[in-house]
Amino acid sequence: MRKRKMNLEEVLEKLKGKNVKRIGIQLPDGLKYKSEQIAEFFESKGYEVIISGSHCYGACDLDLDLLKEVDVLLHLAHTSIFELENVIYVPYYVDYDVEDFEDVEIEEKKIALIASAQYAWKLPEVKEFLESKGYEVELKTGSKRVKMPGQVLGCNYTVLRNSKAEAVLFVGDGLFHPIGAKIYSKKKVYRFCPLDKEFEEVKVDDFLKRRYLSISKALNAEKGAIIVSKKIGQKRLGLALSLKRKAKERGRSVEIIYLDDLSPQVLENFLYGYYVNTACPRISYDDIDLYSVPILTPQEFEITLGLRDWENYEVDEIL
Amino acid sequence: MRKRKMNLEEVLEKLKGKNVKRIGIQLPDGLKYKSEQIAEFFESKGYEVIISGSHCYGACDLDLDLLKEVDVLLHLAHTSIFELENVIYVPYYVDYDVEDFEDVEIEEKKIALIASAQYAWKLPEVKEFLESKGYEVELKTGSKRVKMPGQVLGCNYTVLRNSKAEAVLFVGDGLFHPIGAKIYSKKKVYRFCPLDKEFEEVKVDDFLKRRYLSISKALNAEKGAIIVSKKIGQKRLGLALSLKRKAKERGRSVEIIYLDDLSPQVLENFLYGYYVNTACPRISYDDIDLYSVPILTPQEFEITLGLRDWENYEVDEIL
Repeated sequence: MRKRKMNLEEVLEKLKGKNVKRIGIQLPDGLKYKSEQIAEFFESKGYEVIISGSHCYGACDLDLDLLKEVDVLLHLAHTSIFELENVIYVPYYVDYDVEDFEDVEIEEKKIALIASAQYAWKLPEVKEFLESKGYEVELKTGSKRVKMPGQVLGCNYTVLRNSKAEAVLFVGDGLFHPIGAKIYSKKKVYRFCPLDKEFEEVKVDDFLKRRYLSISKALNAEKGAIIVSKKIGQKRLGLALSLKRKAKERGRSVEIIYLDDLSPQVLENFLYGYYVNTACPRISYDDIDLYSVPILTPQEFEITLGLRDWENYEVDEIL
Repeated sequence: MRKRKMNLEEVLEKLKGKNVKRIGIQLPDGLKYKSEQIAEFFESKGYEVIISGSHCYGACDLDLDLLKEVDVLLHLAHTSIFELENVIYVPYYVDYDVEDFEDVEIEEKKIALIASAQYAWKLPEVKEFLESKGYEVELKTGSKRVKMPGQVLGCNYTVLRNSKAEAVLFVGDGLFHPIGAKIYSKKKVYRFCPLDKEFEEVKVDDFLKRRYLSISKALNAEKGAIIVSKKIGQKRLGLALSLKRKAKERGRSVEIIYLDDLSPQVLENFLYGYYVNTACPRISYDDIDLYSVPILTPQEFEITLGLRDWENYEVDEIL
């Protein structure tokens, strides 16, 4: 059963009483096809609408430029990271039946429950169901970047910090988050997707092999550059400056490049042999095949500098 | 003879006495390969450097976000449009010999002289040379967006406003500017490129045919959207709102999309049948083959709305 919820009527309620004439609408790329329908909904209620055309990868990626042009910015389909005046977050939830967890069989009895944002809202129910099956279930809150118990982001696994569980159960689609969770927690990680009912243990060997290859390539490359993002929730200039200083102390010279969206297109005119990405870690991990040069995480760059052992490989987090 | 000039020592002089620690460097895409060398030059003088990684298409496209992070922003290779505190423009000139104009033979005797920015600095010398050959030469200043006499931009032909000349001579590479000049002035336009010594009369029939095709396609498309750029020198939200209002009055509904760089990638998740581009006009004109849907100029959109006749086709300008 695949239901998705995004309640625009509720937004109308929130707008009432505010002196709002012009609304900005920001949607992740996967939902931009809905922009017409959503804009027409608010226009039919008398509001003026401007749609954000920029790519949008999360609540870390609020369109602050558009916010300056409108009375209220609706940021759709991501849970809040920054509570800003005049930004309304409109969550987008995937609905699913906890009964589907009937077939989830995990060898370990003490498990930590995690999920990506669209699935995390139902984790308390999942916990209850799994407990009724005899598991001991940990469902913890993380750093303030994640709002729901058990919620992980591509850059945040703090709900697993100091976990006492023997294994982790990730609820959601895709392999990206559970791979991060396994590297972060060093525990066995299982994944259950309520949409296609797929259940599997998550392996990270191939992922780590490819990361190691990138690190080796960067080690042999001439000059590199450290990428810093302009995005409110991805900007780590301090980290970049500190990495540059450490590199210099070790005889490696790197430049710092400041930009909005990191993409192969935006880099194609530069000639650096590798990049260190301090923006969204997902770009380094997920987009590896799009780039012809290594895109390292800060931790991987530390390995090339001899500041970290491969054995201490850590997933990049923004806290 | 192809020399190019960009004087960094002069920049050092300008920095002296200012309390500058951190410098931002912004280069057009075609010169980004020089970023390493330029950064190292300033670093060797004790400055901290951050390179702008965003695409850069002109002085209309100042990296104001980077400006917030640095003491001074060096904007390289474009002539100034906006005089902002802490922005230093570093021009980039192509050198050429006015004697090469010896072979330029123009039937008309009264000619207006124009050039793109990298060539315009030498127009007073070219004028003198052509006058010595018996031509009457007009070399006029334009709106404040263009700094040099005779200088045209892809979005500004005001140096040709009320021209009394019988024909126009464009100095520079590429066909983009002279095509714009011909549509703007409705005069005969010749082009001379001092680099390859190519001389030709410029034709616009094919260009206009393709524009007409785009307009027809847009007329038959369902819903469209008007693009507004965030860039300081390309932002025309007022124009977009006014076009939207006029469209509505004529029963055509359009949405407004706000973004930084207009590109096929950024539009690929939207489903609009055509776009009206109020950002850099060059995107509509030059990138026509990159897009699967029509990208109209504001004037072309007016044609689809019945607000302008095809006979009054005008090139889009930002004044």
